[in-house]
Amino acid sequence: MNDYNFNMKEFLPFWDDLKSECQNTILKELKHKTYKKGETVHDNSVTCTGLIFILSGKLRAYMISENGRELSLYYLMDNDICLMSASCVMKDITFDIFIEAMEDTKVAILPTHIYKDIANNYIEMSKYVNSIMSSRLSDVMWILEQVLFKKFDSRLAEFLLFHRDENDKIKMTHEEIANHLGSAREVVSRMLKHFESNDIIKLFRGGIEILNEDELIKLSD
Amino acid sequence: MNDYNFNMKEFLPFWDDLKSECQNTILKELKHKTYKKGETVHDNSVTCTGLIFILSGKLRAYMISENGRELSLYYLMDNDICLMSASCVMKDITFDIFIEAMEDTKVAILPTHIYKDIANNYIEMSKYVNSIMSSRLSDVMWILEQVLFKKFDSRLAEFLLFHRDENDKIKMTHEEIANHLGSAREVVSRMLKHFESNDIIKLFRGGIEILNEDELIKLSD
Repeated sequence: MNDYNFNMKEFLPFWDDLKSECQNTILKELKHKTYKKGETVHDNSVTCTGLIFILSGKLRAYMISENGRELSLYYLMDNDICLMSASCVMKDITFDIFIEAMEDTKVAILPTHIYKDIANNYIEMSKYVNSIMSSRLSDVMWILEQVLFKKFDSRLAEFLLFHRDENDKIKMTHEEIANHLGSAREVVSRMLKHFESNDIIKLFRGGIEILNEDELIKLSD
Repeated sequence: MNDYNFNMKEFLPFWDDLKSECQNTILKELKHKTYKKGETVHDNSVTCTGLIFILSGKLRAYMISENGRELSLYYLMDNDICLMSASCVMKDITFDIFIEAMEDTKVAILPTHIYKDIANNYIEMSKYVNSIMSSRLSDVMWILEQVLFKKFDSRLAEFLLFHRDENDKIKMTHEEIANHLGSAREVVSRMLKHFESNDIIKLFRGGIEILNEDELIKLSD
C-alpha cells in the first residue's frame, strides 16, 4: 500500500491533501490494465474510458480527418495522465480525439464517476486538471505551428530523431509516418528517398536507419 | 449596482455562489477600458494584463510564426472571457498568443492577483476556467483540422462568409486576410481572382463584395 501511495503522488501531486476516505476510494476503484501495441485505448465512439494513469509504455493521441488522414498530437509516457480518455465529462470538448498504444502499455484507470466526483469537490484536483489542459493546449499549439510554419523536410527530420531506437533505426512504414505527421504516404516516401540520396538515411524493408545524425539535426532546426 | 450584478452573471455563471465579500472585491477592482480598432490588447512581452470581460466589440486571438506570418485562432465577442490575457498565471502555457481589437471594444479587466486569488480558492471559478480552457482547446483543434485537412478555397470561402458586413462586403486587404488564415498574400490574391473570374465575388479597392452567396456556401462545405 505504501509503495502504491508513493506512486499516486507521482500522478497526483496533491495526493497528501486528499481526505483519507477519498484516497481509499481511489485506491480501491483503480483498475489495472495492459494495452497491447497498436491497441485502441480510446475513441469518441465508446463510452467514457475514465482517467488513465500511464504506469509504463507509451500512448499516442491523434486526430483523424474526414477522409481518414491522421495527425499525432502528443505522446504520453510514464507518470503522465491521459485526460482526453475522460473528456466525456467536459462539455466544451467538441472534437474527436483518438488514443492508441504505441507499445505494450500498463495503465491504471480511475472510473469516470470517481474522477468527476473528485474534480467537482476538490479544488486541488480541479486546478491540476487545469494545468494538464493548458499543457495539452500548448502541445496542440506547437503542432499547429509546426504544420503551418515549418517545412516538411524539417518536420520529418525531427520525427526520425525523436522516434529512433537505440540502434538509430525507426521501424515504421512510410504510411505510419505519414499518419503521425498528417501527410500523405507519397510525400513521406519522396522526402525519405531524397534523404537517402543524400546519404542521411538508409531505407530497408519495414524501416529506416539514420546514417548521418548531424545532418538530420541540422535539417530539423 | 444591481444592473452590474446581472452583467456579472453573464460572465461568471456561478456569481451568486460567491461570498459577498468576494463579489464586492471583484466589483471594486474591475477596471473599465476601451480598445481602439487595431489596438493590441495583449502580447506575451507585456506583464500580465488580467482576466478580460468583453462588454461589446470583438477581439481576435492569433499566433505569429518566427518569420512573421499570422494565423487567427479564435474570436471573442460580447460576454466572452479572455483567459489568455491572464495566461501568465498558468505555468503550463508555453506558447505566445496575441490579442488585438478587431473593432472598438469595451472591456472590464479583473487584475491578475484578484483573478488568481479567486481561482485558487473557489472551486466554481477553477471549474469555469477549465471549461473555458477546453473550449479554447476545441477552437484550436478546429483550426488545426482546417489548416491540415481543408482545401484553401474552402477555408477562404468560409472566412468571407463569416466576416462579411450587412452589405455583403468584407473590408480587408488581401494581406489582412492572409494573416487571418496563416497564408501568404499572393495565395489569397490568386484565389480571390479565381473567385472573381467565376463571378462569385467582386474585388474593389480595399475590399471584396460577395456576388454569389450560394456558390460561396457550396465552396465552404
